[in-house]
Amino acid sequence: MKITLRETADYLLNNDNFLLLCHVSPDGDTVGSACALARALISNGKSVRILCGDKFTQEYLFMLEGIEMSEGEPEHIVAVDIAVPSLLGDEYEGLYGDKVELCIDHHSTNSLYAQRVCLEPDSASAAEIVYLLLRMMQVEITPIIASCLYCGVSTDTGCFRFSNTTVRTFEIAAELAKAGADYYNINQAFFETKTRTYAALERLTLEGMKFYFDGQCAIITITQEMYARTGSDESEVTKLANLPRQIEGVKVGVMMRELKDGGFKCSIRTHGEIDASQIAGRLGGGGHAGAAACTINLTKGKATNLLLKEVQAELEA
Amino acid sequence: MKITLRETADYLLNNDNFLLLCHVSPDGDTVGSACALARALISNGKSVRILCGDKFTQEYLFMLEGIEMSEGEPEHIVAVDIAVPSLLGDEYEGLYGDKVELCIDHHSTNSLYAQRVCLEPDSASAAEIVYLLLRMMQVEITPIIASCLYCGVSTDTGCFRFSNTTVRTFEIAAELAKAGADYYNINQAFFETKTRTYAALERLTLEGMKFYFDGQCAIITITQEMYARTGSDESEVTKLANLPRQIEGVKVGVMMRELKDGGFKCSIRTHGEIDASQIAGRLGGGGHAGAAACTINLTKGKATNLLLKEVQAELEA
Repeated sequence: MKITLRETADYLLNNDNFLLLCHVSPDGDTVGSACALARALISNGKSVRILCGDKFTQEYLFMLEGIEMSEGEPEHIVAVDIAVPSLLGDEYEGLYGDKVELCIDHHSTNSLYAQRVCLEPDSASAAEIVYLLLRMMQVEITPIIASCLYCGVSTDTGCFRFSNTTVRTFEIAAELAKAGADYYNINQAFFETKTRTYAALERLTLEGMKFYFDGQCAIITITQEMYARTGSDESEVTKLANLPRQIEGVKVGVMMRELKDGGFKCSIRTHGEIDASQIAGRLGGGGHAGAAACTINLTKGKATNLLLKEVQAELEA
Repeated sequence: MKITLRETADYLLNNDNFLLLCHVSPDGDTVGSACALARALISNGKSVRILCGDKFTQEYLFMLEGIEMSEGEPEHIVAVDIAVPSLLGDEYEGLYGDKVELCIDHHSTNSLYAQRVCLEPDSASAAEIVYLLLRMMQVEITPIIASCLYCGVSTDTGCFRFSNTTVRTFEIAAELAKAGADYYNINQAFFETKTRTYAALERLTLEGMKFYFDGQCAIITITQEMYARTGSDESEVTKLANLPRQIEGVKVGVMMRELKDGGFKCSIRTHGEIDASQIAGRLGGGGHAGAAACTINLTKGKATNLLLKEVQAELEA
């Protein structure tokens, strides 16, 4: 059942003992939204625990720091930024997949698996929705809450550059900055700073970028051997996915990264009318119109050919 | 003489027949500020002309489009975002260097060469100041004026990532987005899209990046020969200046680009307590604490050594 922001705020105000769930491969939005919400609920005297099917990586720990997690049995399960139960990860999908009482989300593809869904598909990030909820709950937006929300707002919009950015995104960013969000250091960490190993991997990857269909498609490929050569690893690879689409004339940009056990995870980024989720969907994956992913369990040459066939079909559609 | 925003607004409202001057190597802030101001003055029934010592490159033309430039003899000379008269370029410095009646600027290094100086060194961009002036002048912020100002606001802050970004920057960005600024396409053009030739130049440049002082300084060098090899040219080089500073551990990032007639223009970008304007200043240039520039008329090796000496002095200061 879809519920309004007001109903969601009331549900949060009227209950206690929450478990907040983040999606696997956690990003700034799921972690930032969950941490801001947890801090707000705790400031209202409630018990909260945050869980995620994957380990939180270093860059997100500042948001979790100082949150006193409840150890007791949770009574109310809330999923944040999670479109489908499989994104809870195997363990938590098994434990909680059919017990989520509230899902706060901005994915139009949300499967409505939760008992209550607070869904705003026009919101650039879940953090924008959480900001509105906290205002409605009359929670004080402390500097650390503002930082958590700013992290979600900025990372899900590529620092205000992606097409999901709205006037409201800027307005909320301004409110969060005013409330003391540490926007400078967050922007530096997520958008500016490159480790030496990442920079080496990026350079090596771009050297091998290949163009197809008169430059309408660009593909980069990252192999396990390239991690070894540069000292980088899979934790640094996410940002590379946007690079092929940045090249002028490219409508479909693809990052193919070799998995440890073979096969390739393909991240597809598109511009304009080209629907990335169509390409990924025909190869067993899914996602948004501008960003989608699939896994192809073939050798590099065969995987590339299969992918190119689907890219061509979409370019010609 | 320094004057207030109110006095500046009154000066603009009480005069007519303006010449607005942009600085050489025009950027989004000098062009955006001048074009927004020109449109505002024209909407108030005044005659305006915009001049720049260098040709406006393709990416800035959307801001100039449709501005009806006055052809008559200007009566009042206004410099926008110009810290010192030499930035007018040789011709206009000779013609107007000692005749500037008003300078609107945010460089703390402004030499106060103009008769009236509206100076806000804490403003991230001149465009922020022009926005405040237009509000004070009760000018309607049309979508194209909003786009001109957004271009200045976003480019001078690296899309809100540089340390000059303030709460007010976000607030003004939100106001401009609300007023109809075409922020998506501006962000795409200035921050996301790379031409094939730029991408090739970037790759070649990064291959040659060198580190000094335990990785605290990184230098990239762009030679005329590299333009020839990649099909790129000087118009594409500005964005490269930020890349060395992005590497983790780098406190001073430098781009040295070979000029057509020999010598090197050095763009210095720093983090934290390191003052780029000190380094550039000792080599005959100037700028801000985080971004400054100078020209060294020596061979590559000698220019690098001279620069490194000043970088070391600043690192040890």
